[in-house]
Amino acid sequence: MNVRFYNAKVLCLKDDAKREYQAIEGELWVRGDAIAYIGDGSDTESVLKPGETILWDREIDAGGKLLLSGFKNAHTHTAMTFLRSYADDLPLQDWLFQQVFPREGQLTEDDVYWLNILGIMEYLTSGITSNFDMYFFPPVDAKASADTGFRTVQTSGLNNFGGTVELLEENYHIVNEMSDLTSFIVGFHAEYTTSMELMEGVAKLAQKLHSPLFMHNSETKSEVEECIGRWGRTPTQLTEDLGMYEYGGGGYHCVWMDDKDFEIFKKRGLTAVTNPASNLKLASGIAPISRYLKEGIAVAIGTDGPASNNCLDMFREMFLTTALAKVKDMDAAAVPAKEVFYMATTAGARAMGLSDCDDLAVGKKADLIMIDLMQPNMQPENNLVKNLVYSGSKQNVTMTMVNGRILYENGVFHIGFDPKEIYTKANAIIGRMK
Amino acid sequence: MNVRFYNAKVLCLKDDAKREYQAIEGELWVRGDAIAYIGDGSDTESVLKPGETILWDREIDAGGKLLLSGFKNAHTHTAMTFLRSYADDLPLQDWLFQQVFPREGQLTEDDVYWLNILGIMEYLTSGITSNFDMYFFPPVDAKASADTGFRTVQTSGLNNFGGTVELLEENYHIVNEMSDLTSFIVGFHAEYTTSMELMEGVAKLAQKLHSPLFMHNSETKSEVEECIGRWGRTPTQLTEDLGMYEYGGGGYHCVWMDDKDFEIFKKRGLTAVTNPASNLKLASGIAPISRYLKEGIAVAIGTDGPASNNCLDMFREMFLTTALAKVKDMDAAAVPAKEVFYMATTAGARAMGLSDCDDLAVGKKADLIMIDLMQPNMQPENNLVKNLVYSGSKQNVTMTMVNGRILYENGVFHIGFDPKEIYTKANAIIGRMK
Repeated sequence: MNVRFYNAKVLCLKDDAKREYQAIEGELWVRGDAIAYIGDGSDTESVLKPGETILWDREIDAGGKLLLSGFKNAHTHTAMTFLRSYADDLPLQDWLFQQVFPREGQLTEDDVYWLNILGIMEYLTSGITSNFDMYFFPPVDAKASADTGFRTVQTSGLNNFGGTVELLEENYHIVNEMSDLTSFIVGFHAEYTTSMELMEGVAKLAQKLHSPLFMHNSETKSEVEECIGRWGRTPTQLTEDLGMYEYGGGGYHCVWMDDKDFEIFKKRGLTAVTNPASNLKLASGIAPISRYLKEGIAVAIGTDGPASNNCLDMFREMFLTTALAKVKDMDAAAVPAKEVFYMATTAGARAMGLSDCDDLAVGKKADLIMIDLMQPNMQPENNLVKNLVYSGSKQNVTMTMVNGRILYENGVFHIGFDPKEIYTKANAIIGRMK
Repeated sequence: MNVRFYNAKVLCLKDDAKREYQAIEGELWVRGDAIAYIGDGSDTESVLKPGETILWDREIDAGGKLLLSGFKNAHTHTAMTFLRSYADDLPLQDWLFQQVFPREGQLTEDDVYWLNILGIMEYLTSGITSNFDMYFFPPVDAKASADTGFRTVQTSGLNNFGGTVELLEENYHIVNEMSDLTSFIVGFHAEYTTSMELMEGVAKLAQKLHSPLFMHNSETKSEVEECIGRWGRTPTQLTEDLGMYEYGGGGYHCVWMDDKDFEIFKKRGLTAVTNPASNLKLASGIAPISRYLKEGIAVAIGTDGPASNNCLDMFREMFLTTALAKVKDMDAAAVPAKEVFYMATTAGARAMGLSDCDDLAVGKKADLIMIDLMQPNMQPENNLVKNLVYSGSKQNVTMTMVNGRILYENGVFHIGFDPKEIYTKANAIIGRMK
């Protein structure tokens, strides 16, 4: 689509290293799937040949609203929407083994397709423009994204109970070749669910494909202790020794890390994807975010799946990322808002291999959202980034655009499906399992 | 107003002691300021005399939406809206002494009036129908509520730097007599800001007026240690010894409590008002919610002021109340959702002396909200109360009614003021101080 936004404030990086942001007042032009212009409108000749005009599909008066880079949900299991509010307030082991696993075993590919779409709808309401997803049937998960126009990076949840390294490689190619909107990074579930043979196979595959690698890493204290018991090393050290990070990557959760783990993350340029709401709700712990920043290790933010959170809301995750760091360190100055906003946008995009979606700038993909500042929680306008991180809400999201297409605007979805049909299907799927 | 809601789901208590809820499908009638009927519509003769009809001001097709009791924000400093995103990411002492106090000293009564209205607007978007407010100029704070139609319970922030016991008593009468929507409970700021002489005066006043009493209590570890240093007792024990709780009351925050403090709360029937977002952001700690429940002590929930949170969102507070308890106890089963919902509605109302606003039932005040369930974060409908506590959002609030009047509906405020005017004033007030 060719879309011209005018009367807008465009929030973008001013200084990447310092995480300094500016709000440019004026216009943002989208041509096809990319950003063609950002400025006050006085220098548009830089993008137009003499005499050239653009045929606009839409010209949108932003009325002073804020355009910003869409949020990157850097760890999730989208299709777990069916289990929302179904199994909560339970000890972790009961939750996983009595509630989650038996029901996941009943999911068909068709179920997973529809449950993905429900999750994608929720992402759009929260200003999320791409996800880094691990679930059953990655080609199906990816197809749900491609069909709705959402951007997804899939990884594998390979473990002892499902999947093979061969299937992982096959899915890598299927998803990477499916659509401009879909890509795949090598991964597996976690050390505690995966045999040495499989882990060695995954490491070799990442090397062969020159792929970064991600897994659930050090989410709980007992996971780390048991890994040390089995292999004499933490999950990070074991997977490093197996040669998993020759092309980078990172871990999901990364709550319980020792000094050597931090060193490996630093040396390999790995990203720690934090999932604060899930880590609270499942009583896993509080991640050492200040330490990552101190060490210069990239941090991205994910919601985790809707069964363990239970919502897919990056505003909540952003607030928690800084607020939990503050209480963990007992230091109200820990992890400033601008660092958190950077994690939720730029750092997330880069961890997901989406460096062309990491900021609003000419030539970048048009993955962007619009925020209504004329609402009480966004006033006064003392500091826009702080308003977003500390008091922002899904309620403020008036538009979500992915790859140049408006998928959500003023509460209405433009994804090719009737929301009511999706809700009916989701209720029927869990209804079948009760 | 006489308002008939039909095609609604009405969420109300089924068993108070067990915190069990039911969703009655059908109608809810509001007559004047109170609820006149809840049911499936087949037994309305119980509220109508033979031949009587009600002249409806509005008949609202709820279209399957959920009606529930409005949230009670049981501790806040509403007018601090001007400092939102102005002083964050700072150590607590710098925040308070260099940023907050000098600017608060410049506030006029007129400023506080407008800043209150900004806060009230935010409450309405979050489904909050009443607040328990402590700030300068309680009669002005109360007038802002009365003028907009919002329900408020005011208390005093009396301390060494402002106010007298005489003024407190005067405000008690002014606010209690101002309007049906305004009431006043005796209180003072905190032990660490208040002389023994003043505290003794406040205790006598509470006894004289037969009033419950509230104060900031044991918010930080150092506050408790310093109180023990000064008086050989914790703030709870000191104020109990001073005779402050003869008519009940409670404390705000209540993070750092010892065994004897719990005993006093139990014996006196006091309420611990928890403020989880503020306690994180200011690095105060995590309150012992499970212990309160175990001891049978009532817990209510507050946002604290917008300078220390920074938003006035009861959905965020509800999630944090359970999620932080889970990580504090390292037990994913701690503090179930239904307990949290009860805190945010029933327990809050009772702590604030609003027992006629503590549930949706015939004869209760019509302080209620409408939630759109046909949104992705509310689907599937496995458990409505869990959906509200774990994945609910301001985005789902389509209507907020206080005392039978609709003050907020589908994003539009009906409070007698133009939102833009309020935003302009708020920006001007903080602008003057920069």
